[in-house]
Amino acid sequence: MLALKTPYLLFFGDEERQTYAKTGLGLAHWRPEDCVGQRRLTPDTADAGLPDLTIDEAAAAGARSVVLGLALVGGSLPSHWLPDLVHALELGMDVVAGFHTRLTSFPDLVTAAEKSGARLIDIRVPPENIPVGTGLKRTGKRLLTVGTDCALGKKYTALALHREMASRGIDADFRATGQTGILIAGSGIPMDAVVSDFLVGAAEMLTPDADPDHWDVIEGQGALFHPGYAPVSMGLLMGSQPDAFVLCTEAGRDTIRGWDDFPTPDIRDVIERNIAIAQQYNPDVRCVGISSNTVFLSDEERPGYLAGLEDTYGLPAVDPLKGDGVAPIVDHLQAQTWP
Amino acid sequence: MLALKTPYLLFFGDEERQTYAKTGLGLAHWRPEDCVGQRRLTPDTADAGLPDLTIDEAAAAGARSVVLGLALVGGSLPSHWLPDLVHALELGMDVVAGFHTRLTSFPDLVTAAEKSGARLIDIRVPPENIPVGTGLKRTGKRLLTVGTDCALGKKYTALALHREMASRGIDADFRATGQTGILIAGSGIPMDAVVSDFLVGAAEMLTPDADPDHWDVIEGQGALFHPGYAPVSMGLLMGSQPDAFVLCTEAGRDTIRGWDDFPTPDIRDVIERNIAIAQQYNPDVRCVGISSNTVFLSDEERPGYLAGLEDTYGLPAVDPLKGDGVAPIVDHLQAQTWP
Repeated sequence: MLALKTPYLLFFGDEERQTYAKTGLGLAHWRPEDCVGQRRLTPDTADAGLPDLTIDEAAAAGARSVVLGLALVGGSLPSHWLPDLVHALELGMDVVAGFHTRLTSFPDLVTAAEKSGARLIDIRVPPENIPVGTGLKRTGKRLLTVGTDCALGKKYTALALHREMASRGIDADFRATGQTGILIAGSGIPMDAVVSDFLVGAAEMLTPDADPDHWDVIEGQGALFHPGYAPVSMGLLMGSQPDAFVLCTEAGRDTIRGWDDFPTPDIRDVIERNIAIAQQYNPDVRCVGISSNTVFLSDEERPGYLAGLEDTYGLPAVDPLKGDGVAPIVDHLQAQTWP
Repeated sequence: MLALKTPYLLFFGDEERQTYAKTGLGLAHWRPEDCVGQRRLTPDTADAGLPDLTIDEAAAAGARSVVLGLALVGGSLPSHWLPDLVHALELGMDVVAGFHTRLTSFPDLVTAAEKSGARLIDIRVPPENIPVGTGLKRTGKRLLTVGTDCALGKKYTALALHREMASRGIDADFRATGQTGILIAGSGIPMDAVVSDFLVGAAEMLTPDADPDHWDVIEGQGALFHPGYAPVSMGLLMGSQPDAFVLCTEAGRDTIRGWDDFPTPDIRDVIERNIAIAQQYNPDVRCVGISSNTVFLSDEERPGYLAGLEDTYGLPAVDPLKGDGVAPIVDHLQAQTWP
């Protein structure tokens, strides 16, 4: 499985738009201890609040990877970024990116990497030799985040749950299934890029046997009722064999984003289908909470909305960004007996 | 989408084992009109009952593709097969195979193909630029075969249904999703090799808009309760948006083949889960019959077993290899009103 060398220098080039730089910004938010600094080519470039370093300064500070924390517009690296990246490779740092365009398609980078032995790492590329899923039970415990749709907080919720669990002394790992998550965790498998026959096997590989009290907190992908991405969610659900899952949703989202003919499914239907599929691999699987993105609610509306979810489903319902965050879900998890 | 040039010369090399030659034997069985002959290097080589031709004779008979109708043991082509294949390429015939090892990894073949302009076609390789699934409704009608497990007759049943429908003058196409099916159809998409994010889109691409009374008869893959391959089945089910499906099973199979810890699911559970998932895309989806492989039943046991299925599920139940084959299922399909 892919494993990245920390600490990182975050490279933002001259990208000024926050949304295009969100991979790097998310990495700095969740793993400040892994980031020695950032490289910004202009004063208006996106800013993660880290020390501004040149490549030489980053090397002196111990950086072992340069992470391109931004989206590539139009498929090509701006040529004025190359000198920095080539220099980093020459100094032995890996260069890491999650572009559709492979880093190995840029001859200057390949040459520099070959010379120093540094690596060009495309985190969209899954590992080779993933096995077919076995369905066999593994030791340790697993929690998966699932959604009523995509892009509503499955990764954020998993990271927040992991942080809360770790802060309580629970032995836990965050298991990443997408690009930003993989950068944050330093390892993982990009599930959406895995060939279909090996999806379940990839999820099994991602969450291996562990101590009985260990929790893997697994970043969900897609959604079981999503017209494009449901098979990815199914493979991840089967292979991760969750003991527990947290349902992620967004208050007020009426249709699947980008698939406007499809209404957002009912929360109960999503919980029930996840249970129906997961029970084949773990009869005791249960939903332990609801994590809702309430960005479109006012501060007055939020408490009533969350209380309504708690009443309807008999589960703790939180906005992970508000109040006590996901703590009530971890309370609920800890209050239960696990086999 | 992949499209092969007919007619074919089937190449069996010196493979004597029927099971290793089943791709070629299946092709000769279902598409004798597309096969001008077979090339066998020894008298004991597997025999599809076609005229034995040399490469030159096949070219004279109009063959446009040489199909390697066998499994490759150990990943390499025996070197004494190469002269025939090189000669075929030199004469302008395509060479077609479904090996894990790509034909393009054999330099002699690449050189010969480049010289003549003939193609090396690896039917395990899906087309490029498959879109993400849209979930949008397409015109025309679709029938999918689904299973309680793998390797129990989904391809055979789909081919038999297509043949029966065509013989009754129903406008129908067989849509192939696996290697042997693709050779038989002359086109198709190897679903199990598609990257997960594009599975649904691949199924949509496979069965495009058609005339309102046209039926696409789609070869199923995997099984929704299969511990390794369920996500492929889910993607195919979603993207094919079936109006009708036929449940395929095998009498007496108690466990998932090769996954012995998993009992074969109940037929009713399989029907219900297929309906539950497919209804999101076609509310009127229905199961129209059961096709059971009864090879392990005696002639005395078979009628009672099939009658029992008919009573329990209220659907025609057949062994596609016995009696009237799948005709009762097509009767049932034709007796219904379709939207």
